[in-house]
Amino acid sequence: MNKLPEQNDLSTSNSLSFGEGRGEASLYIIKIGGNVIDNSEKLHEFLKAFADLKGNKILVHGGGKMATQLAAEMQVEAKMMVGRRITDIETLRIVTMVYAGLISKNLVAQLQKHGCNAIGLSGADANLIKAKKRPVKDIDYGFVGDLDENSVQTENLSKLIDGGFIPVFSAITHDGDGQLLNTNADTIASSLAIGMAKHYQTSLVYCFEKKGVLMDVNDENSVIREINPTFYEDLKAKGIIADGMLPKLHYAFEAINKGVKEVFIGKADDLSELESVGFFGTKLVN
Amino acid sequence: MNKLPEQNDLSTSNSLSFGEGRGEASLYIIKIGGNVIDNSEKLHEFLKAFADLKGNKILVHGGGKMATQLAAEMQVEAKMMVGRRITDIETLRIVTMVYAGLISKNLVAQLQKHGCNAIGLSGADANLIKAKKRPVKDIDYGFVGDLDENSVQTENLSKLIDGGFIPVFSAITHDGDGQLLNTNADTIASSLAIGMAKHYQTSLVYCFEKKGVLMDVNDENSVIREINPTFYEDLKAKGIIADGMLPKLHYAFEAINKGVKEVFIGKADDLSELESVGFFGTKLVN
Repeated sequence: MNKLPEQNDLSTSNSLSFGEGRGEASLYIIKIGGNVIDNSEKLHEFLKAFADLKGNKILVHGGGKMATQLAAEMQVEAKMMVGRRITDIETLRIVTMVYAGLISKNLVAQLQKHGCNAIGLSGADANLIKAKKRPVKDIDYGFVGDLDENSVQTENLSKLIDGGFIPVFSAITHDGDGQLLNTNADTIASSLAIGMAKHYQTSLVYCFEKKGVLMDVNDENSVIREINPTFYEDLKAKGIIADGMLPKLHYAFEAINKGVKEVFIGKADDLSELESVGFFGTKLVN
Repeated sequence: MNKLPEQNDLSTSNSLSFGEGRGEASLYIIKIGGNVIDNSEKLHEFLKAFADLKGNKILVHGGGKMATQLAAEMQVEAKMMVGRRITDIETLRIVTMVYAGLISKNLVAQLQKHGCNAIGLSGADANLIKAKKRPVKDIDYGFVGDLDENSVQTENLSKLIDGGFIPVFSAITHDGDGQLLNTNADTIASSLAIGMAKHYQTSLVYCFEKKGVLMDVNDENSVIREINPTFYEDLKAKGIIADGMLPKLHYAFEAINKGVKEVFIGKADDLSELESVGFFGTKLVN
């Protein structure tokens, strides 16, 4: 297993560490997007599968259409720039309410119903994810928070996990100086997986709209089961991985290079396979 | 110190208990109402005082005007009945967003700025407060949750406190079957203090708009420093405690009868006195 640079070994040695119980315990970080949140039937099935998954796990959820709906009800105009939402102060208020309030607490209540000891968290809670407000260059993205390798406060998060709690993260972070920030949920999932690789064997699981990485984009049955870096370069060169899959896989392999054991990419509907056959969609490995 | 009935002793003996470390550790449960939330200057001072207060502590916050404002922006009509808000499904959505999202996460971000390791929680999180939907009799209050002596899951909450986290509760609970519920914040504070009296010496602190219980309602300097049950009966008989103070003190003494060590009632502005002189407003004792 790749390890992160050793800079944090001093802090980990002060608490639970490899020799002291957590050892090579595994941890799943599972990210669902708005397409799951917006479909109550899909969501119900997904949450059941998530609750049934044994072992340590974290859920990271995106927002879905609810924030856009609320903005419309409040007659707040959604501001987009190069396909990204601009988070002005009013939009920050809305996403804080919808992501960290409405969606987070409803997911938690549903998971508790399934016997899963979920706890809904933003990055501000227990200082778990500290972001930096994105600097203004050509575009002012507003209250958007970017993460770096020190963003995740892994000791507090490990305490919660070791206490038997199942963290459910919304994509709201803070700057440590009292300001909440809006952060991309994919990035949160990846940063959690990388950060927690100090303490656990982490598996990062992205649920998206397809069954996995496809050999033929028009054939859902052409899922590639496993991709390593060499095969990845090959698939890129042949144009099989292109467009929206490129950044997804780029960040996935970056996570693997930074100590994450494996990345799965697949459809939320199939999550139960992770428990039943230990596999899900496409697996990316080192 | 009064103890609760012994029915829960079996469960506490399985984990940390009096003999094993927490012993007679103290725990403050501090409740602030909407008047503090709505005034940013007052709120800032209060949060600083709360952060500075040493030892174990829990913050419980009400809602303030923000829910009403949001309802107006969304053109949802606030429904009141005998002075109480009726929580229809739309109102539940609003209070979940405002209390458990907007207010909770902003309080947490501010407290983290002051070095206080706050974690924002609803009753659904970690199944901490399980309520029962209020039965429909003459009035259907909608999605309102009532608490009883088994509502607070004290083991999970103790784990968080012993882990160094400072719980910040919004007044949203759940029924354990997937449904969120709206619950009175005063009642949440009191139930937390009573439930946690199994594990800690609990002090319940209510912040309201006056400096304490007043001998003369028109004189802010006539604060009664300490009231025991005999004095309480005397003050009631003389009509000095009347109107809105009656239910407040009734529930406060009920908490004391159920194992809470002391109840303070005073003004949020003065909270720093609790740290500096160990006293605040009016103290109710057994």
